[in-house]
Amino acid sequence: MRISQVGEFGLINLLNKAMINSPTGVVAGIGDDAAVLKVSGDQWQLFTTDMLVEGIHFRLDWASYFDVGWKALAVNISDIAAMGGKPTHGVISLGIPAETRVEDMEELYLGLRAVARRFGVNLVGGDTVKCPERLVINVALLGEVAAGKAILRSGARPGDIIYTTGTLGTAAAGLHILLNGGNYPDPIKETVLRAHLRPEPRVQAGTLLSSLPGVTALDDNSDGLAAELREIGRASGVGCLIWEKALPVAAEVQQLAALTGADILDWVMNGGEDFELVFTVQPAYRKQVEAALTKAAVDFAAIGVITSAREGLIMERVNGTREAMGQTGYNHFTD
Amino acid sequence: MRISQVGEFGLINLLNKAMINSPTGVVAGIGDDAAVLKVSGDQWQLFTTDMLVEGIHFRLDWASYFDVGWKALAVNISDIAAMGGKPTHGVISLGIPAETRVEDMEELYLGLRAVARRFGVNLVGGDTVKCPERLVINVALLGEVAAGKAILRSGARPGDIIYTTGTLGTAAAGLHILLNGGNYPDPIKETVLRAHLRPEPRVQAGTLLSSLPGVTALDDNSDGLAAELREIGRASGVGCLIWEKALPVAAEVQQLAALTGADILDWVMNGGEDFELVFTVQPAYRKQVEAALTKAAVDFAAIGVITSAREGLIMERVNGTREAMGQTGYNHFTD
Repeated sequence: MRISQVGEFGLINLLNKAMINSPTGVVAGIGDDAAVLKVSGDQWQLFTTDMLVEGIHFRLDWASYFDVGWKALAVNISDIAAMGGKPTHGVISLGIPAETRVEDMEELYLGLRAVARRFGVNLVGGDTVKCPERLVINVALLGEVAAGKAILRSGARPGDIIYTTGTLGTAAAGLHILLNGGNYPDPIKETVLRAHLRPEPRVQAGTLLSSLPGVTALDDNSDGLAAELREIGRASGVGCLIWEKALPVAAEVQQLAALTGADILDWVMNGGEDFELVFTVQPAYRKQVEAALTKAAVDFAAIGVITSAREGLIMERVNGTREAMGQTGYNHFTD
Repeated sequence: MRISQVGEFGLINLLNKAMINSPTGVVAGIGDDAAVLKVSGDQWQLFTTDMLVEGIHFRLDWASYFDVGWKALAVNISDIAAMGGKPTHGVISLGIPAETRVEDMEELYLGLRAVARRFGVNLVGGDTVKCPERLVINVALLGEVAAGKAILRSGARPGDIIYTTGTLGTAAAGLHILLNGGNYPDPIKETVLRAHLRPEPRVQAGTLLSSLPGVTALDDNSDGLAAELREIGRASGVGCLIWEKALPVAAEVQQLAALTGADILDWVMNGGEDFELVFTVQPAYRKQVEAALTKAAVDFAAIGVITSAREGLIMERVNGTREAMGQTGYNHFTD
């Protein structure tokens, strides 16, 4: 059997079981956005890694080297935010084609450094090696969260309200322009391309959520809302009912969809890379959580409710009908 | 200017300056085998990463997938050992060609798991992505050492004795057989191939050295003895005098050199990948350190003495003459 027949998620199931040889130090291993480690009495540590490959995760005819550096670190920071944590220390590995210009690598580092500075991350180590055909960037990132305050994907229960920060589908709209070209007014183009090329991880919202009571599950929207809801559903043993009319979409994305005839719902559910936070809240804490987010100027929307596992993932369309959603969601190997 | 004109070490100088945005948590950043972080009062944390690229760092016609998994984690464990630490938690990123067989990836994981079990490392996370032409493996590894007990490269002073654990040039002898073929008796072949394909990081020796007084600098022999001595020399601001007759070489390596006419000294000084520990000890503590290593059954040899920076790297040949050593040492980009 070839990797191409299994797909990334199948591969993760086959091979990526955590291997714990010294269990006292580990709160949670593989299966969430980051591992959770005990390193001192009052702090837990978070540990995550992501690899980006030229031509698979980014294209250098679309993205500047600065963009690539920014995004490589930003997606890892988002994994820390998705646990309710604050990023602390990172190490960077670069696989570089020999004909790459030094100036381009300097620009990539400026992108890494800009996002590191923004989020107070220390870049403390790295490895640079030759990789003939493609630029490969791996970031491994540590974070911290108060002991007991990491928010996993597994705590959602039927009746909990489902929320997202920000808006959905914006990065996918940016990818649509990059893939298809076309000349669109600046406010549209600037908004959607920025969302795709320079994502802003939601560290402030994540750390706030970890300090609030009643937040039961948390994930970042890297693979599209449908995929993230399925992950919460699988980890928590629940289903999700999503209200189409409640899904927050930026005005620029609505305008672009109107101009191109594209399907907004496809961008929202399957597009991914928005790096917003998807989270669930117990109904009793709904008002308290919403008030705290509003006070902190975090934009959010209630988009559905947790149901039982046998109901699966269902969308209540604008016209009131309910539809079960299929098994879509971005997959690196089989698409 | 192209990366190929700068070379890896030039690139590291250009780009890999540590970027410290939250200085309270960092004891030492880029420039040693691993970064040193403060995470609790009595423990320091070590953090390192290494990327291995198919065709550059390993060849799948020489090494099994098990070997590749073993070595990818072992070289990172060696970086932790080279700080005097004990490895704790690792995350693994794999960039995989789509036509790779799932069974081969399972074998690679068995190699990772075998070395993780041997050294008590928890594998707590990972990322698997597509990389069309080559298998790329990145490991990021945490370790721990008692606060104040990490051994950097920068503490050597003139008069300190230079030591190595184990023997030198064995992995390079293995590479010689892989590159040139040839049929050699099993004890030779088995010893030198194992050294190249299944290196054993020196965690026990490293943690013992970190507990002893008078150990002033420590490095692992990944790039050849000449390169490691230059790194200690640069970091400590000193020179090194090496005694050729004291360099420990395995009997099998001497036999292979006799059979092939190869230059043992080239294997020892420039070969690298032995992953033995090179360290320096103040003369006043020499007896105490040697006794402790002997008691722990760690094999070691005194191979030279630290001199002043202006003397550079000098070898006293078997015949008593002294020769300055040139600027050799493995480099990923310019060779």
